[in-house]
Amino acid sequence: MLLEKPVTTFLDELASSAPAPGGGSAAALAAAIGAALVSMVANLTVGKKQYVDVQADIQRILTRSEELRHRCQDLLQRDVAAYTEVSRAFKMPRDTEDQKALRDVAMQKALKDATAVPMELAEVCVDILDLCPESAEKGNKNAVSDVGVGALLAEAALRAAALNVLINLGSIKDVAFVQKERARLDSLLEGKAELKEQIVKDVEAKL
Amino acid sequence: MLLEKPVTTFLDELASSAPAPGGGSAAALAAAIGAALVSMVANLTVGKKQYVDVQADIQRILTRSEELRHRCQDLLQRDVAAYTEVSRAFKMPRDTEDQKALRDVAMQKALKDATAVPMELAEVCVDILDLCPESAEKGNKNAVSDVGVGALLAEAALRAAALNVLINLGSIKDVAFVQKERARLDSLLEGKAELKEQIVKDVEAKL
Repeated sequence: MLLEKPVTTFLDELASSAPAPGGGSAAALAAAIGAALVSMVANLTVGKKQYVDVQADIQRILTRSEELRHRCQDLLQRDVAAYTEVSRAFKMPRDTEDQKALRDVAMQKALKDATAVPMELAEVCVDILDLCPESAEKGNKNAVSDVGVGALLAEAALRAAALNVLINLGSIKDVAFVQKERARLDSLLEGKAELKEQIVKDVEAKL
Repeated sequence: MLLEKPVTTFLDELASSAPAPGGGSAAALAAAIGAALVSMVANLTVGKKQYVDVQADIQRILTRSEELRHRCQDLLQRDVAAYTEVSRAFKMPRDTEDQKALRDVAMQKALKDATAVPMELAEVCVDILDLCPESAEKGNKNAVSDVGVGALLAEAALRAAALNVLINLGSIKDVAFVQKERARLDSLLEGKAELKEQIVKDVEAKL
């Protein structure tokens, strides 16, 4: 389990030429850090007298940010598994026409499965980003910069997940699938750079 | 040592209300992930026949990206230490005028020291970002999306480090220091969002 390794070991393995972890797991970890910061700000607000009026909202944010963080952690592991399947299909024999055909089917299936992971990560990143405005508004004011950091990392992870979707789509031959996934990705990305800038601007106004 | 803890434990502690790690360490980890991806792409290029013409350049990039990654890892630890000093000064007694004066001196010193860490991280993030265009141009084409992910995370970490500088500057009374550090930060940020977008655009053109 990659997540059970020390942070330095994870970084050493990421930096190495080993097939996994790669950019997909890196994006999932960045998103998990973003969600963790939203949770941290909520945890610094829970039970505080000055924030008595927003306790129900903060509890709701915390439950959601922790759910999203754990989904990022799952996606980090799933990205490794999906990439391993692509590598396995890639190494299948291709000496005969039958072998080539079998390898092609396996490759196309593995690539579609490997696309689902960063696509789901992109959705989770949007959900993390959507928690930030209320978190910056109602959360502990001493930690408001941490909401800004969370939003910056969630948006970067969204863009990173998009690159990981696109590199897979480039090798998928099912044109209808590619068009559908590309449209889904575009709709996830739309307006999110602006949302992130607005969150950072609101945070900076409170510093 | 925070870096020796499992990734999940780091994330659990980040999400908690414990004083450290916080947004500064989160930004340093995101930057380390970005640098690690630049190293990964270089490691996937070293010794490859198709890339024989760029081996010297790739070796230079790899040496530099690994140096920058290790600086991020050091800064992650240093951020915790600097924040601990600020907390310690904050908790000093303030019952008498003398105690208040002593506490104020300690607070101001701790805040200046705590500003130096994210400022240095911002510089390192710029250096990581500066490695990306050549890395996307000369590195293993199968891993070009990972350079894009690295650039996205390095730029988000730069912006995150800037928020951490700004929150400290807000409590520092030395006007000359604040003006100087703010100018330094502005010059580090200038043009970097555009540089990141250009890198991602170049990467997308190769997918």
